[in-house]
Amino acid sequence: MHSFASDNYSAVHPEVMAAVVAANQGHARAYGADEVTERAVTAIRAELDSDAEIAFVFNGTGANVVGLQVMLRPWDHVVCAATAHIAVDECGAPERITGAKLVSVPTPDGKLTAELVRSVRTRIGDEHQTQPRVVSISQSTEYGTLYTPQELRVLAEAAHAEGMYLHVDGARIANAAAALGVSLAELITRTGVDVVSLGATKNGAMGAEAVVVLNQELRPALRFVRKQFMQLGSKGRFLSAQLLALFTDGLWRRNALHANAMASRLSSGVAALPGVSITRPTQANHVFATLPAAAIEPLQQVAPFYLWDESCHEVRLMCSWDTTAEQVDEFVNAAGKLLSL
Amino acid sequence: MHSFASDNYSAVHPEVMAAVVAANQGHARAYGADEVTERAVTAIRAELDSDAEIAFVFNGTGANVVGLQVMLRPWDHVVCAATAHIAVDECGAPERITGAKLVSVPTPDGKLTAELVRSVRTRIGDEHQTQPRVVSISQSTEYGTLYTPQELRVLAEAAHAEGMYLHVDGARIANAAAALGVSLAELITRTGVDVVSLGATKNGAMGAEAVVVLNQELRPALRFVRKQFMQLGSKGRFLSAQLLALFTDGLWRRNALHANAMASRLSSGVAALPGVSITRPTQANHVFATLPAAAIEPLQQVAPFYLWDESCHEVRLMCSWDTTAEQVDEFVNAAGKLLSL
Amino acid sequence: MHSFASDNYSAVHPEVMAAVVAANQGHARAYGADEVTERAVTAIRAELDSDAEIAFVFNGTGANVVGLQVMLRPWDHVVCAATAHIAVDECGAPERITGAKLVSVPTPDGKLTAELVRSVRTRIGDEHQTQPRVVSISQSTEYGTLYTPQELRVLAEAAHAEGMYLHVDGARIANAAAALGVSLAELITRTGVDVVSLGATKNGAMGAEAVVVLNQELRPALRFVRKQFMQLGSKGRFLSAQLLALFTDGLWRRNALHANAMASRLSSGVAALPGVSITRPTQANHVFATLPAAAIEPLQQVAPFYLWDESCHEVRLMCSWDTTAEQVDEFVNAAGKLLSL
Amino acid sequence: MHSFASDNYSAVHPEVMAAVVAANQGHARAYGADEVTERAVTAIRAELDSDAEIAFVFNGTGANVVGLQVMLRPWDHVVCAATAHIAVDECGAPERITGAKLVSVPTPDGKLTAELVRSVRTRIGDEHQTQPRVVSISQSTEYGTLYTPQELRVLAEAAHAEGMYLHVDGARIANAAAALGVSLAELITRTGVDVVSLGATKNGAMGAEAVVVLNQELRPALRFVRKQFMQLGSKGRFLSAQLLALFTDGLWRRNALHANAMASRLSSGVAALPGVSITRPTQANHVFATLPAAAIEPLQQVAPFYLWDESCHEVRLMCSWDTTAEQVDEFVNAAGKLLSL
Repeated sequence: MHSFASDNYSAVHPEVMAAVVAANQGHARAYGADEVTERAVTAIRAELDSDAEIAFVFNGTGANVVGLQVMLRPWDHVVCAATAHIAVDECGAPERITGAKLVSVPTPDGKLTAELVRSVRTRIGDEHQTQPRVVSISQSTEYGTLYTPQELRVLAEAAHAEGMYLHVDGARIANAAAALGVSLAELITRTGVDVVSLGATKNGAMGAEAVVVLNQELRPALRFVRKQFMQLGSKGRFLSAQLLALFTDGLWRRNALHANAMASRLSSGVAALPGVSITRPTQANHVFATLPAAAIEPLQQVAPFYLWDESCHEVRLMCSWDTTAEQVDEFVNAAGKLLSL
Repeated sequence: MHSFASDNYSAVHPEVMAAVVAANQGHARAYGADEVTERAVTAIRAELDSDAEIAFVFNGTGANVVGLQVMLRPWDHVVCAATAHIAVDECGAPERITGAKLVSVPTPDGKLTAELVRSVRTRIGDEHQTQPRVVSISQSTEYGTLYTPQELRVLAEAAHAEGMYLHVDGARIANAAAALGVSLAELITRTGVDVVSLGATKNGAMGAEAVVVLNQELRPALRFVRKQFMQLGSKGRFLSAQLLALFTDGLWRRNALHANAMASRLSSGVAALPGVSITRPTQANHVFATLPAAAIEPLQQVAPFYLWDESCHEVRLMCSWDTTAEQVDEFVNAAGKLLSL
Repeated sequence: MHSFASDNYSAVHPEVMAAVVAANQGHARAYGADEVTERAVTAIRAELDSDAEIAFVFNGTGANVVGLQVMLRPWDHVVCAATAHIAVDECGAPERITGAKLVSVPTPDGKLTAELVRSVRTRIGDEHQTQPRVVSISQSTEYGTLYTPQELRVLAEAAHAEGMYLHVDGARIANAAAALGVSLAELITRTGVDVVSLGATKNGAMGAEAVVVLNQELRPALRFVRKQFMQLGSKGRFLSAQLLALFTDGLWRRNALHANAMASRLSSGVAALPGVSITRPTQANHVFATLPAAAIEPLQQVAPFYLWDESCHEVRLMCSWDTTAEQVDEFVNAAGKLLSL
Repeated sequence: MHSFASDNYSAVHPEVMAAVVAANQGHARAYGADEVTERAVTAIRAELDSDAEIAFVFNGTGANVVGLQVMLRPWDHVVCAATAHIAVDECGAPERITGAKLVSVPTPDGKLTAELVRSVRTRIGDEHQTQPRVVSISQSTEYGTLYTPQELRVLAEAAHAEGMYLHVDGARIANAAAALGVSLAELITRTGVDVVSLGATKNGAMGAEAVVVLNQELRPALRFVRKQFMQLGSKGRFLSAQLLALFTDGLWRRNALHANAMASRLSSGVAALPGVSITRPTQANHVFATLPAAAIEPLQQVAPFYLWDESCHEVRLMCSWDTTAEQVDEFVNAAGKLLSL
């Protein structure tokens, strides 16, 4: 089976799996006090050019909720795009687990700007309203759009100037960094990001993410919150091994570049078909397009993908590290045939 | 490195690792809608002789907190032993995440009885006090003691008679079932347990547990709570594969029997040494003993283990599926030498 | 000092104060087990023509949060207008205390409709998203607009048809019932409302509200939630006495009719002034109007009121049970002078 | 009706009621921005000899939960006596609303000591366990026992030395200060208490308490937490007026001295009766005694009181500001007759 449904339908990259298997040597200290974890932390810190506090967790929702909690006082809220994963795909975990309100802002392209953040900034110091504490963005966004390092810098400066923190849901930050051609140090550390969910699962891991706390003052809370929020694995080496593999020889970037390239190929391919319009710029590993309504279900039989917006027949096609050019081409061919009927 | 520190220091059983590797074939539907998950659920249901609702989760704390939430109204409390993992080893996750109070009861042996539960049953219907809703026990307990099926039946009946549910933290339920020589159907389904955390990690898995909801009325909540409590893995097949392997050809029981046998060997071995007293019956894979104070640190250099109760020099030695007779004997020999000095 | 800032700037009605003083006779059973409470409950039930469960609480936020909790499972959300008090004026109490998400819907007039509720109804049964459980409306709304009994009936039916409940924040329900010329039985009981926050403070009380649970299944939770949410007063008779006074000889309606009449007088008065536009229909005790920007601050010196929307110079003028015709006329005159300069 | 059930069965002191009535003059700014509130804060600060942050709230549970939250990080716990009101009489509000664990310590007399606090101090810095952050005591305790200023100083120093705060549930702190013959400055400010719930309701108020935050760093959180925890009254003057009256001309102390004197008279009276033993020192306004089992119900018909510990026929008799010597003597006489039968 191949699919364009989600990059989390993808398999585990062989180098990651080999690292997991290799970690399986006798006993190791539990809860992240093992050597593999130490090496993984070192590797990520090197890539980030930062001594950031790093905690490995199980999944993206866990990473986001742990990362947000580290920044929040009880009466704070989080400003995010209306399309943010934390707002619409985490079953209310951010609200229930942290207790904080999310203030969702409609955006044209899934991206927050300093202006949009400012537009919901009201009644500062008024105890009748939650206070803005965190700007949370997704990089790349749920629409596959990207923030440039300069855009991040502006957002971070604006947030900091107003006593807020900048949080990045980086479930697909690898795809963003690869597309932008920058290091994670350039993308995160040097832009002023405070906390980032560093995604690995969609980038070829089996199931592992990292919460990275760059801001010094926020670091001590991280390990307590991870444990309390049920994200501390006992056999930690098998989580760490996944991240260590991805941060060895730039595997994370290779995987992301490939996924992005496949999305680009797919985007070009379907763009040329009759009745198809690409609806969002293909910047990372997402392709958004409108299709003739009647073609959607038959085409989902060829390879599954999501109907994103039923009202306008917009679909989302995701590519991943293991999408092949052949699979893309077959899909485009099949689509071409279906659409020419 | 070998250790007697915890069964979560142990490696992944080769059959489990092989199953994980084997699950890595192309794309699969995410979030547990894959075939491996279906097969794992079927296998566990067969062992349980029940169509129970089953959700795979990441770790023991997650399993316990999800399982407890399914039973709790906002004003309820959970009755547990003062030594329960949920009370002392989960960083307050049960209280913070579910919001419920835990009522901890001191016990001589880590085991609750209907009498102990009744002893804290007060002010029923009085809105000034939280109301008892769940009896939560650990099987095997944190002291390595066991509940017989008959004891479970009595507890379940007493709980149900008072409008309560019976929850089992089964992080080491495999060891219990193996020691008692009963099936999980006999131990869980036919004793009236409502919800169980079915442990796998300490039994040879990499990092996976199952929340099993037997009580019909409680089942619909399970999948929502799992997602909201950040315990739903996207590449679910790699969690399920671990459980499927353990529930294939009775691997879970083989592993547990071996760990128990090693604990028995270790217990007999150290019991014969000068200055050592076994402090708890060795029923599962735990050995508790008091040692001469001066011997503890040198012996921890031989193989790590936990100092359980500093006040009386009681230590805990855990065996696991991968503990070998040679390791046990070497340790006993080393201990004998140290203690004879 | 008089003001048009808020009806909670108003004093306590003499009949309410007399009732409070009269309740101060010797000892009385605490926590609502007193006679005054019994009589107040009886009086409200008579007005409602319902044996609803009724709990007196301290304030509006408390009433709303208690009432919402009674309906919510952990994974549920509440649909409300973007302008709802629960969404913007309660410092995130609904989210923090119940843990639920609020889904805020922009409206033209502060009123939800079945269509608006349906427009945010998505992904039913999908565990990745919170599930819609409660439609929460304000009657009268924060814009002073009203729902007719027929509109409420339609909303309740639509909610119930989709497995949802209808909640009414009735901080100013007295003004609504008075304006509509209906009884609370017609407005609440016979329209299918499940839970209502019955406001008293703004209607001449000192500080007391009632949570009324009409839906049978939801009733048992009420008293536990009230206590746990810190809304149970020990000397309960002094809360109850306030409501008893308001529900004696129709005082609640007299107060509301007067406040509404004053708003109507004020609305007519300022509407005739140069540069003033009434921006919302004056249906209850609110007057919304745009003023010339330069006139706002000088006029606030005459009598305080809120600048509602700075961007368009919209102000809110609230009347209350103790607003006098002279105060209204003086304000209109003063405004007329200021605006004619 | 008179009763010895609880000091919250008592009426409102006439001076308090007069102050409430007097506050009812025209409009006043809402939410505590009024003049009465300003005066009440000034009066309490003068008594405390401190510029502490003070927030008026509705009830004792609210005061405790707000006060505790101000000190807590998500992974913290509160150490309290097993008999503490927060542990057994607030329906789990502290756990549900703050999310924190309470660590309850059995005590002989309802009093914590530095040794008892230290006895549950374990695993500092270990993320698997909640961390001790607050020592919460009741003054006077639920057993009517008292902490001397010197005992408080020792507790505060011990707490601070270990990075903890000292919280006082002062629902009956007036009785304690009166019994000890000290000012609140001597009892609170100069002993190092960080946060106190300053009780008024049981001391002659209608329903009002104050949360006092002495610790500088903790002050900014107070008003946000009060609002979010649903404890901010809109017509704030009527809460403040109660406290202002109690802090005018030492009314709080007069009331407390009287209640204490009545308890002393009652204690002496019943102590002399056949079959009665005073079980706790009568230091404040509580009397604890064991009675012959058969006498309890008939005596409750004379005047209600609580059966405290059914197992040993221990009862609690509370006196209040409005208990009269005649009522005490009548009760003692009636008891004498019943017990002589």
